[in-house]
Amino acid sequence: MPNPAILYTRIRKIRETLVTDEEDMLAAEEPLEIKLVHGPAHNRQQQSLTVTMRTPGEDHELAAGFLYTEGIIRSAADIADIHTSPDDIHTIQVSLQEGVRPVLQSAQRNFYANSGCGVCGKADVASIFTPVQSPVNEQPLLTLPVERLLQLPEMIRDQQPLFDFTGGIHAAALFNTDGELLFLREDIGRHNAVDKLIGAALLAGHMPLHNGVLLLSGRAGFELIQKAAMAGIPIIAAVGAPSGMAVKMAQQWNITLVGFLRQQRCNIYTKEERIVV
Amino acid sequence: MPNPAILYTRIRKIRETLVTDEEDMLAAEEPLEIKLVHGPAHNRQQQSLTVTMRTPGEDHELAAGFLYTEGIIRSAADIADIHTSPDDIHTIQVSLQEGVRPVLQSAQRNFYANSGCGVCGKADVASIFTPVQSPVNEQPLLTLPVERLLQLPEMIRDQQPLFDFTGGIHAAALFNTDGELLFLREDIGRHNAVDKLIGAALLAGHMPLHNGVLLLSGRAGFELIQKAAMAGIPIIAAVGAPSGMAVKMAQQWNITLVGFLRQQRCNIYTKEERIVV
Repeated sequence: MPNPAILYTRIRKIRETLVTDEEDMLAAEEPLEIKLVHGPAHNRQQQSLTVTMRTPGEDHELAAGFLYTEGIIRSAADIADIHTSPDDIHTIQVSLQEGVRPVLQSAQRNFYANSGCGVCGKADVASIFTPVQSPVNEQPLLTLPVERLLQLPEMIRDQQPLFDFTGGIHAAALFNTDGELLFLREDIGRHNAVDKLIGAALLAGHMPLHNGVLLLSGRAGFELIQKAAMAGIPIIAAVGAPSGMAVKMAQQWNITLVGFLRQQRCNIYTKEERIVV
Repeated sequence: MPNPAILYTRIRKIRETLVTDEEDMLAAEEPLEIKLVHGPAHNRQQQSLTVTMRTPGEDHELAAGFLYTEGIIRSAADIADIHTSPDDIHTIQVSLQEGVRPVLQSAQRNFYANSGCGVCGKADVASIFTPVQSPVNEQPLLTLPVERLLQLPEMIRDQQPLFDFTGGIHAAALFNTDGELLFLREDIGRHNAVDKLIGAALLAGHMPLHNGVLLLSGRAGFELIQKAAMAGIPIIAAVGAPSGMAVKMAQQWNITLVGFLRQQRCNIYTKEERIVV
């Protein structure tokens, strides 16, 4: 069966003066609408939450993770059922248990959105900060030896099949503080990779992730910090740069934020006492 | 005067076994709300279009470029005035000329958005494709010698001050087919970098950019192709990978799409006849 995450295309390859025409692989990017079904049995309501452009695959996890990291649901037990719409393969429906009321205020956005930030379109600036239900605690202080931290990028290098094929996809990986890899997910959108990862952990019953270390293959945008904060993750390490707002948000949520983690080097921006040198 | 695009922060640097505490620079990321004022003199209306997270700087160009690439305005002449709100530095107001009716349908989104794609939150899948007013023509065929294409990344290397300082910011550059650099803009969001660039060209009276070559420092997401198509740009070259949807959209709009442009190499995905080998 063909992998829906990959598209094949003919390209012209130029290598200095060498020109060849060949087949190449691209990361697929398709819209997915996430719909929420909730309310009492006699009055079920259906509501469209978002259309996200994602790499097909793990859509259930993506939907569950999205609802959790946006604060719309509070636990996996809130979910009665997740299924692809029988009428439209681009739609996934999440049905909540009857007694569960989704929290939609913080997710409320303006009608218009346009950016890579995961908050654009929110109706006002204050709504950028979503309240966190299981914040990272100061005590007891979880620690990670620096040698283990520096090894993390190496540990996922051979576990990113979509990146290997296409060279254009983000990965998010979850480790415990013993350095064991628990989950790895890939997506063309880095928010989606994190939502898939947290959705997988949620559906497997692992919340909150107070013993978790999140590794990001790219930059650390603040919306990824917000999502990790929702899941209670105390340590985030990114191969790329953090933004100014990411550092502010990591400070606010007591999260250790590491950037430029590559080639046995890194910068620690916040809560450096968790990384034992 | 301090540069508002840069934040200073104390970090702990780890270089193998060497640990130092020093000051470092981060790319700033702040919300900007774009408001539109339009309608006849006796009945002016004000409307909030979006909140985008951007690197402060060139906000006028960002707002103008956003309105143009989203198809809300049709030319620079539609704009009467752009100014930062006196009440709120996080708000920029664009006032249209009295007779001008903004086109808001294609921009209509659902209330919720969450992704790096620039279309997430649009109310349905069909609204992903914004109609293009100055499409790229087949004839006369504009061409670019491959030697010139391969030089482009080199030409902006020393012109990205924010990247040099922070290591975490996107650049978009506009060249003509003689290989002359016309504009370069940087932003933490790649859509914002392209909107600032196209806004700069728009306000300078250069639309449509039928002789333009757009260079992107990162990956080519399809929403960047859409924005370039709105500006009539025939050739797009990205240092990173294109997505599957980016290739589809470049095909649809007759755009030459080049990816992985680095180290004297590249892949050409669409309309390769414009690149003369």
